[in-house]
Amino acid sequence: MDKKAIVLYSGGLDSTTCMAIAASEGFTTYAMSFSYGQRHSRELEVAMSNATRAGAAQHMVVEFDLRLIGGSALTSGVEVPKNGVTSGIPVTYVPARNTIFLSFALGWGETIGAQDIFIGVNAVDYSGYPDCRPEYIASFEKMANLATRSGVEGHGFRIHTPLINMTKGEIIKAGLSLGVDYSLTHSCYDPSPEGISCGLCDSCRLRLKGFAEAGIPDPLTYQPLSQQ
Amino acid sequence: MDKKAIVLYSGGLDSTTCMAIAASEGFTTYAMSFSYGQRHSRELEVAMSNATRAGAAQHMVVEFDLRLIGGSALTSGVEVPKNGVTSGIPVTYVPARNTIFLSFALGWGETIGAQDIFIGVNAVDYSGYPDCRPEYIASFEKMANLATRSGVEGHGFRIHTPLINMTKGEIIKAGLSLGVDYSLTHSCYDPSPEGISCGLCDSCRLRLKGFAEAGIPDPLTYQPLSQQ
Repeated sequence: MDKKAIVLYSGGLDSTTCMAIAASEGFTTYAMSFSYGQRHSRELEVAMSNATRAGAAQHMVVEFDLRLIGGSALTSGVEVPKNGVTSGIPVTYVPARNTIFLSFALGWGETIGAQDIFIGVNAVDYSGYPDCRPEYIASFEKMANLATRSGVEGHGFRIHTPLINMTKGEIIKAGLSLGVDYSLTHSCYDPSPEGISCGLCDSCRLRLKGFAEAGIPDPLTYQPLSQQ
Repeated sequence: MDKKAIVLYSGGLDSTTCMAIAASEGFTTYAMSFSYGQRHSRELEVAMSNATRAGAAQHMVVEFDLRLIGGSALTSGVEVPKNGVTSGIPVTYVPARNTIFLSFALGWGETIGAQDIFIGVNAVDYSGYPDCRPEYIASFEKMANLATRSGVEGHGFRIHTPLINMTKGEIIKAGLSLGVDYSLTHSCYDPSPEGISCGLCDSCRLRLKGFAEAGIPDPLTYQPLSQQ
């Protein structure tokens, strides 16, 4: 029988690896992306052009505007910080974002009969977001099975977080072993108009640290400033 | 201090009553509605024109298209049933709808400092939706407080369901005692192009039963068929 999984897919390093892992576990993958008014349309462009190449049987892009809600450097005029990863919840935190994303995944999952949802959250090399922690994911899963027909009448939803305990370096090594082409991924929070990564935001720093850890050069090019 | 609450507001009987109850508890109310591709735009029109009259300090309408996801008579071509309320989860169930709505409310609540969210779900005279049950709401609240900055650093979110154990008749009586004008509410799943309620869908039937229980005439007019 066809085993379907929804994979939350941003076009980034983590979600692309996550999709490869879902496929390696025998799932037919249904990629879901969100156009939510993020500052950088680059991320979404990458997702749109690469979802099928990354193995998705189908790709859905859901649109809504989190700029109405604001509260984050990623959806408002607040500057993206570039002075290194700090402790606490950073200004790039988008209120309730993963909860909103997973909720739409639940809806699609109910409709196509996919009760497995993959999300590439990470609690090791992460940015301090509360909605990337294992206790959050476990709680969402419990809620999901009370919220839905599949939870009440079916086998129930399972939220898979294969990357949650991996370092960035381990994620990259896992992806490479599954054939992921990281030149087709994008991570930067604040790329140039041409889509070139800044090399300085939290997301670029974590990515570069990951490639350094894995002992492999990052196939992306970066803006000159980061080479200083 | 200003006590703010988000109220999920559809323009219907329940959510309008819910907003009046939130105000009577001392909250400044922030109404949130959704344009999600529902069959009947009438519900949203009612919400747009009446939110402020119903007491909201601000009204936000979030747009997205659940027709992409489908799976419900309310968002697809499936016929809305008109032969009475049946047992089990009906075809008007919209996969993950309340979870999606509450997730957006969490996001807005984080941003404006409202940690109280009101939702007019009802587990007595309800339509058999899994996401209207008290155990679902309790589970969502727990998840919300792991998902968010307010949950981790603040007082935490509370999901209020003042109507959950009330019959439709009790809801109407409570609303009338708080001055709710039910001629400004809309309940029908399948109104005529002019916005006249059908009187036959589950939602109309529950509403009419409620007014009958309360011993008060419904101020709405209905299509002639329902008078047979």
